[in-house]
Amino acid sequence: MAPKSVQAASEMPAGDPKHAARATRSAGRQMRSRLLDAASLLFKERGLAAVSIADIAASADAFPSQITYYFRTKEALFVEAACRDVLHVARAAEEHAGKQLSPADYTRALVDSVMGADAVGFFVEAMMLTRRRQDLAPLVERTVERLHAEGLRAYAAEMAARGWHSRLDPETSARRFWAIAIGVTLEGHAMGRAPEQLATEMLRLIGTQADAPAGAARLKIVGAGNSDSSSEA
Amino acid sequence: MAPKSVQAASEMPAGDPKHAARATRSAGRQMRSRLLDAASLLFKERGLAAVSIADIAASADAFPSQITYYFRTKEALFVEAACRDVLHVARAAEEHAGKQLSPADYTRALVDSVMGADAVGFFVEAMMLTRRRQDLAPLVERTVERLHAEGLRAYAAEMAARGWHSRLDPETSARRFWAIAIGVTLEGHAMGRAPEQLATEMLRLIGTQADAPAGAARLKIVGAGNSDSSSEA
Repeated sequence: MAPKSVQAASEMPAGDPKHAARATRSAGRQMRSRLLDAASLLFKERGLAAVSIADIAASADAFPSQITYYFRTKEALFVEAACRDVLHVARAAEEHAGKQLSPADYTRALVDSVMGADAVGFFVEAMMLTRRRQDLAPLVERTVERLHAEGLRAYAAEMAARGWHSRLDPETSARRFWAIAIGVTLEGHAMGRAPEQLATEMLRLIGTQADAPAGAARLKIVGAGNSDSSSEA
Repeated sequence: MAPKSVQAASEMPAGDPKHAARATRSAGRQMRSRLLDAASLLFKERGLAAVSIADIAASADAFPSQITYYFRTKEALFVEAACRDVLHVARAAEEHAGKQLSPADYTRALVDSVMGADAVGFFVEAMMLTRRRQDLAPLVERTVERLHAEGLRAYAAEMAARGWHSRLDPETSARRFWAIAIGVTLEGHAMGRAPEQLATEMLRLIGTQADAPAGAARLKIVGAGNSDSSSEA
């Protein structure tokens, strides 16, 4: 909870209507999140058409009316779940890639994380859905913008922190990453490719993103292999 | 007509059943082509759901039963029209690009041609459609393979004929071209981008494909500008 809320709560009696409103908002956020989690799993497993609001409500231990209260329609819930998923996966990919020691391992970790989840395929379907549901387009637009902006921020920060040299300007590199992820996913689904094949294809098309300065291993390599010296005999 | 057919026709009397079968086949091909032309225009204008078999038949001056005879379903016609369109556009793009004099102009001509038509967006919808209509996937698969194979062949031939040096191996370059075209189209539609914006974004993400040998302008530049000397006074 933010400091402002804590302070406000200490100044108010427990029965205060603002306190009750906060509690309701917090419960509302939890319910929303639970509905999105359940929807995401079901939609990725069965697709939009084969999942009903009743299915999602049952899976989230909620009432169908709670879904229509928070999301209005199944399609709006689909798009919001897909947008949330792809942003989660992008952040997890950056975290995983941030632990790698070379530019090549960094790119591989990004690609494996992003293509290993169903999130890009789910997001591709959400993008297509906005063609007939223009009212849902703004959330997809904002999500594409966030993928680009957060990708740029993370990539530029990694290059700077490690002293790596990006072959393209970082913004183009981040935008290209997502365009290729989306293109490879859509082609791959049409070709019946498995997730590992998608990752291999994407890695091939991304190529080398960055170079480490020649001869300078800037990070100490630790924990390579299972050294016997570290095991207790 | 292929030489073999001409020779065969000269050996047969006019009333020969093989001749009649050939005439029927040729009329059938023409009708098929007319139905595909009409379908392509209508689908690109209004989308799959808003076009009926009766609309396409009326537009092609044909009977609805001819559509079901040649294509069985509206969805199969949609996929076949989209696959044909994207292959046509790819060939027209190669032809247009083949007239350019520098690697940068070559790439720009390819990108402008491919993104200027609605063909990639139409093909993206066909790809998505195969997710719920697995029976239509084989044609889409073959089309992706042909886009890759024909792109590779054309690109490798241009590089060799002009003495340009491709930055990536030609197969990766061709596959990357299409993945980016598809990714940029899907993102762009979701973002409400105009075709010129799609071309600009794609050009940015493709970057430099190839380099001309330094200092060697290998082709003579002719016909630049409208010279007054060629007009009849």
